[in-house]
Amino acid sequence: MTSISPVARDADSALDPSPERIREMGAQAVDWMAAYHEAVRDLPIAPQASAAALREVLAEPLPAEGRDFTELLAVFRDVVVPGSRHNGHPRFFGYVSAPGTAVAAVADLLASALNANLPAWRSAPAPVELEHVAIDWIKEALGCDPGAGGLFTSGGSMANFTALAAARHRHCGAEVAAHGAAAHPAPLRVYTSTETHHSIHKAAALLGIGRANVREIPVDAGFRMDVDALVRAIEEDRAAGAEPFCVVANAGTVVTGAVDPLADIAAVARRYGLWMHVDACYGGFARLAPSARPLFDGLAEADSISLDPHKWLYLPADCGCLIYRDPEAARAAFTLDADYTRVTQTDPAEAFAFWDYGPDLSRRFRALKVWMTLAHAGSRAVGDAIEGNLDCARHLAELVDASADFEMLAPPGLSIFCFRYLPPSARTGSRSAADEEAIDRLNERIMVALQRAGSSYLSNASVNGRFALRGCVLNYRTTRRDMEILLDDVRRAADEVTAEAP
Amino acid sequence: MTSISPVARDADSALDPSPERIREMGAQAVDWMAAYHEAVRDLPIAPQASAAALREVLAEPLPAEGRDFTELLAVFRDVVVPGSRHNGHPRFFGYVSAPGTAVAAVADLLASALNANLPAWRSAPAPVELEHVAIDWIKEALGCDPGAGGLFTSGGSMANFTALAAARHRHCGAEVAAHGAAAHPAPLRVYTSTETHHSIHKAAALLGIGRANVREIPVDAGFRMDVDALVRAIEEDRAAGAEPFCVVANAGTVVTGAVDPLADIAAVARRYGLWMHVDACYGGFARLAPSARPLFDGLAEADSISLDPHKWLYLPADCGCLIYRDPEAARAAFTLDADYTRVTQTDPAEAFAFWDYGPDLSRRFRALKVWMTLAHAGSRAVGDAIEGNLDCARHLAELVDASADFEMLAPPGLSIFCFRYLPPSARTGSRSAADEEAIDRLNERIMVALQRAGSSYLSNASVNGRFALRGCVLNYRTTRRDMEILLDDVRRAADEVTAEAP
Repeated sequence: MTSISPVARDADSALDPSPERIREMGAQAVDWMAAYHEAVRDLPIAPQASAAALREVLAEPLPAEGRDFTELLAVFRDVVVPGSRHNGHPRFFGYVSAPGTAVAAVADLLASALNANLPAWRSAPAPVELEHVAIDWIKEALGCDPGAGGLFTSGGSMANFTALAAARHRHCGAEVAAHGAAAHPAPLRVYTSTETHHSIHKAAALLGIGRANVREIPVDAGFRMDVDALVRAIEEDRAAGAEPFCVVANAGTVVTGAVDPLADIAAVARRYGLWMHVDACYGGFARLAPSARPLFDGLAEADSISLDPHKWLYLPADCGCLIYRDPEAARAAFTLDADYTRVTQTDPAEAFAFWDYGPDLSRRFRALKVWMTLAHAGSRAVGDAIEGNLDCARHLAELVDASADFEMLAPPGLSIFCFRYLPPSARTGSRSAADEEAIDRLNERIMVALQRAGSSYLSNASVNGRFALRGCVLNYRTTRRDMEILLDDVRRAADEVTAEAP
Repeated sequence: MTSISPVARDADSALDPSPERIREMGAQAVDWMAAYHEAVRDLPIAPQASAAALREVLAEPLPAEGRDFTELLAVFRDVVVPGSRHNGHPRFFGYVSAPGTAVAAVADLLASALNANLPAWRSAPAPVELEHVAIDWIKEALGCDPGAGGLFTSGGSMANFTALAAARHRHCGAEVAAHGAAAHPAPLRVYTSTETHHSIHKAAALLGIGRANVREIPVDAGFRMDVDALVRAIEEDRAAGAEPFCVVANAGTVVTGAVDPLADIAAVARRYGLWMHVDACYGGFARLAPSARPLFDGLAEADSISLDPHKWLYLPADCGCLIYRDPEAARAAFTLDADYTRVTQTDPAEAFAFWDYGPDLSRRFRALKVWMTLAHAGSRAVGDAIEGNLDCARHLAELVDASADFEMLAPPGLSIFCFRYLPPSARTGSRSAADEEAIDRLNERIMVALQRAGSSYLSNASVNGRFALRGCVLNYRTTRRDMEILLDDVRRAADEVTAEAP
């Protein structure tokens, strides 16, 4: 064995800096953050960036020698930030996107500095207990039973995937885990509405269930699952030899914000022995807002609930969450057996391991930012902010309904609104199919022009086959006044594209 | 529609604090971080914590009203930190655990403050380009071809899962994605050594492939896969009608740090048309250390490589990584189709979406901490630190070999060492099976006593059926002197448990 002389450690190196250097780096970063939070209301929302131009500045070979932090912070501040979309802007209404909170960013610094890793209790006793506390708070916000349990995940897609894995395991048992899905030849069926997020279909593909075995149930005029149609589909499939095992309800669809009739779906799930999963990634935390609370009746009956604290708890990415009504029902789907997962503790709380409830082994201390944001703001302020977001969406709908040049394409669902601009020729009288297509094309061009202009940002959706300007209010900074500015911005974009193509 | 009065926004609230308040919170957190980095060398590594005592302090109902940040930081500092295991301590040798770096913690603050979300290029142009740059640097560190591509993941388990999903999709095509694994009734087979991390088995269970279809190939005396046995297993399975589709090689097993013969395995994969995946989560970055580099010959021929920058790039959790030799081969396994994933860009670099290459949709800006750590330290300093870790493990082995009271149970593999204490009676002459079992029990008690004493931390492994004290050096703070202290600490623990039970 060759002997190498010991590597000298600098008292102050890039990998292991002195306390002074850490304070200096930290102060520079915090100064940027404070300035950014102040400036974000006034930045152009989306960057005028091209991949080629960014690569020109950022790409370089792996550097052998290091550079000062100040120089790297300058690249971040002068290239990365201006080349980013500003999701914290009060008129960024695209997709389902939270602004982040300052206290959560500070919590992420603390979590990374402590570098706790949370596969199991013994790996990080206090951080794991804090994750339990944060999960308990979320259970309370949702009205879940005390026996429920859960964990934070990288996001909603992974929470949905994990729930379907647990549901399949409860139905198929150890044989599929051991010998694969081919060992269970009868086709499995998952039911969900036509409005469901495609992460459910993706999960079915990955799990070996198959996208085609996700059966889409039609919706009513409010985009809520038609429960009679659900029952008919289950009966049909059973008669044909397929095995219904899971129903996925939505508590806030991404297109229109619809909340499925949860209590009715829970009753069907009970009747047919299905695992009921609720995708509440977008909407679940709206239960903290009094005006939305009744929509969530029945939620606590679900076997599992997906949530995204990085949506309506306003947290920065990433933080998804999965709640199990009966965590023990999920355990067998994920449990590991290896030397490095051997647990010697006898107290069940100390033998606890998150790897028994989800796919990950190493797990970031995401709970800190959830706990710190909820404890710092309090649930009342969070509920008030959510109520304010709901109010903004309703206000937008009222403005649209009172206008001549806009129309709603769906009733506002939670804080989501879908509407479109109508050119003067389309404001009265009947419209042909060709007229409708022209309106679709016009609104698509309006959306692009709006995004380019930078004062407001909407994304698109297809609502009953029509192109909708779609927005989601998910920001504590957004006010009624922003909704008025939004409509003015859309009008300006409409004028611009109309002037371009007469 | 009921109208609610607009929610008043405070100029300075917990959700939306003033720049002054942000600077104050940030300064307090950074001060703690600087002090923690200075103190971590001297803290007892593992806490004397009980779940009941922690819950007593931390559990409370969801608070309606918020609390000052200072008060929350005090809970973090006085309860959470002392109740945590200090993974950054230079003598924390348990599992495969990085210390984190200060610059990465600062990068995590910046990432959370900007709150970029990276599902696709258009969502975050500059952050996505920076992820490409960081991936390119990792490809360069591994010696991969320029055409390779990849993405960061929550961790190694998810990277391994994602690789197996891509491998299965290449073999089975769209039919399994559409109709489930039952549509492909011939059993699929994954090959990997007996030493492989159990995340491979877990992935096979979740994907509907089945744990039993992960066929474990025996290893040689150095715990490297026996390639002749691999060929025999493939031939046997083909003759029996099973379908070999994937081989998983290790570049650093978690038990002994063995690196499988990658070039030989690549040749077998080519011959039989298998997807070759390399689990390099622990070991991959050791290619930056000159003394380890030859072990990685053949790595670039793999179809996919899993890595954990939150291991040997010293980053805080979480940051896993997956590299595809041909990213287009993976695309079809993950691709989504929905309004909110519609891409209108025509430049392929701007139409790029990470959701085509992995299971997540929302994705944290993990690339910033990777880029910042590599750019701040430079690859030479990282390689030197890794070389120092390798040297520490070899130094420990030399000390053990030169001692009368310890013996190695396996040659050191990369920076992992497996050894045990020998009581005086076992140091000479032959040992019966009962003697061996007594030595196992003694070493298990020594490990517990060592962990309790707090100056050094080892975890356990089973090596050729014997209980091993196992350590992994993965910390830029660790020096040769720490290895000497470790052995003294083990001797002290041995004296303690021997005195207890005469």
